[in-house]
Amino acid sequence: MIETPYLLFLGDAPDPLAAKVAQGIKDWRPDNAVGQFRMEGCKADLRLPDMTLAEAKAAGAKTLVIGVANRGGVISQAWKKVLVAALEEGFDLASGLHNLLRDEPDLVAVAEATGTALHDVRVPERDYPIANGKKRSGKRCLAVGTDCSVGKMYTSLAMDREMKARGLNSSFRATGQTGILITGDGVPLDAVVADFMAGAVEWLSPDNDDDHWDMIEGQGSLFHVSYSGVTMALIHGGQPDALILSHEPTRTHMRGLPDYALPSLEELRDLSLTVARAANPGVQAVGISVNTAAMAADEAEAYLSEVEARMGLPTVDPFRQGAGRLVDALAAL
Amino acid sequence: MIETPYLLFLGDAPDPLAAKVAQGIKDWRPDNAVGQFRMEGCKADLRLPDMTLAEAKAAGAKTLVIGVANRGGVISQAWKKVLVAALEEGFDLASGLHNLLRDEPDLVAVAEATGTALHDVRVPERDYPIANGKKRSGKRCLAVGTDCSVGKMYTSLAMDREMKARGLNSSFRATGQTGILITGDGVPLDAVVADFMAGAVEWLSPDNDDDHWDMIEGQGSLFHVSYSGVTMALIHGGQPDALILSHEPTRTHMRGLPDYALPSLEELRDLSLTVARAANPGVQAVGISVNTAAMAADEAEAYLSEVEARMGLPTVDPFRQGAGRLVDALAAL
Repeated sequence: MIETPYLLFLGDAPDPLAAKVAQGIKDWRPDNAVGQFRMEGCKADLRLPDMTLAEAKAAGAKTLVIGVANRGGVISQAWKKVLVAALEEGFDLASGLHNLLRDEPDLVAVAEATGTALHDVRVPERDYPIANGKKRSGKRCLAVGTDCSVGKMYTSLAMDREMKARGLNSSFRATGQTGILITGDGVPLDAVVADFMAGAVEWLSPDNDDDHWDMIEGQGSLFHVSYSGVTMALIHGGQPDALILSHEPTRTHMRGLPDYALPSLEELRDLSLTVARAANPGVQAVGISVNTAAMAADEAEAYLSEVEARMGLPTVDPFRQGAGRLVDALAAL
Repeated sequence: MIETPYLLFLGDAPDPLAAKVAQGIKDWRPDNAVGQFRMEGCKADLRLPDMTLAEAKAAGAKTLVIGVANRGGVISQAWKKVLVAALEEGFDLASGLHNLLRDEPDLVAVAEATGTALHDVRVPERDYPIANGKKRSGKRCLAVGTDCSVGKMYTSLAMDREMKARGLNSSFRATGQTGILITGDGVPLDAVVADFMAGAVEWLSPDNDDDHWDMIEGQGSLFHVSYSGVTMALIHGGQPDALILSHEPTRTHMRGLPDYALPSLEELRDLSLTVARAANPGVQAVGISVNTAAMAADEAEAYLSEVEARMGLPTVDPFRQGAGRLVDALAAL
């Protein structure tokens, strides 16, 4: 559990895309972001107040979040100067970098001396139980994809936001590093030991109010041979009541697997429901989320209409149209 | 890779069942077992020569394998005396215990001083890559089950033995601790980090001769919500050409999950083939292996006949009848 709110560290980001984690935090949890810290030469700008460490401290920030990718897999000495100063100022640090904060002896020493915490969200901070499969109270929605990186996290965050806006009872449950930094909590599922994956998801989505929805962040794809085991554990540990089918229609092959074609939405629906019924016989596919970023507006509209007619499920691009119709479908369950 | 052959340590086993790992080694790889080491009060007997450490050394043993479960999760001081003496004698140690050898400072110190190795087969000894899904040469057979612990490892070992007896080109590929100790090599799949599960299976079963069969040890079940992610990674990383459907007909619920009924063999066949086709479109279900240990002989025979007629696949209990008909089915592919 990372203490909020954050000061977002953009470092010397070479372009706006390098700061996409920080952008995600600002977009989805603006209350978590009191300001940004930019170094000389930084080419990213979240249009948040630029703050010194002292100003951010005064504004209530508890954690300095590294919201930028580092270059060459090294935490540079230029960054280190800021990170050490932040620890000295009493900030915790949080990072999703491949290079772990905990592997940097200087940061570890200063954190120990100052009683501050180093959060590496790529690796689990606790042990998880083996899944027990017991039916839990409350309701759960999971986005499953024809492939990796088709917009599952975006879909769940957009639905969570829409539900909160309607006064519905909803939580986004993060299962990857970006989601964990956005919300301050979650399970880095791809780094959990195999035997405990489903148990970690059960832990992440415990018993809740009958009218409460967990919007569980999806990972991988049942059809992606590199990561399908993680997706399987998400479905069986999450025991979802509702599935959102997610797709990116212009992709010519599975991500990172040039010899593998994407499955159809029908194949995704059928396999996902078959698998999910083992944990929750009442599960339903309630909607379809399509990432049409690579399509022109009229092409996207035609595609969405065609899919909706063919599949008989509300079909939207939540980035273009919002998640309202997907939330309508959940509410109608 | 554990150096063979072994001296099998039975310690103070309270009954024969406590030494079932050692029994498995002796049954399946008798050439790996030069003798047994029993302490006072040992109630297990593999009918191997009882040897001192020096005798086993002279007979060529390279590794002392702890082939017995310990009591209360502690490696007792009585055991330690033997284990330290074995290291001093130049033996490596290998263990599948929950308590790791590497967590015992005295064993670590003596192993370092003597240049011997401590193999804890419950935890990976190396890093694995992320799966790349590339089609590999050679052929692969995987047993998949309606539940955990229905006889998948036994089936694969029995088929491997039968293939070798016929002069066919076959390797048993271990994915669990007992299998690893039996063969001296393998991947402890349930202890691998999620992102690398399928890649570990690819590593375990590399390119091979066109007529070579890997008999990959199965784990878990696609229908067992605690472990299904491991099974999924095995199917997608293993890219099997042939599946053996495994079942235990007297079980009233999924192992450890009192609220979960077992799927039918038809459900197992259909889901397994759907999933396996993503990695290998030509995969076929070729036979059925039933564990009838809890049934009388005539009851078992009637059940096997009924299943064979219903499913249209050779159906045997390899413990009662051998694995010959399953190997016939592989050879006919």
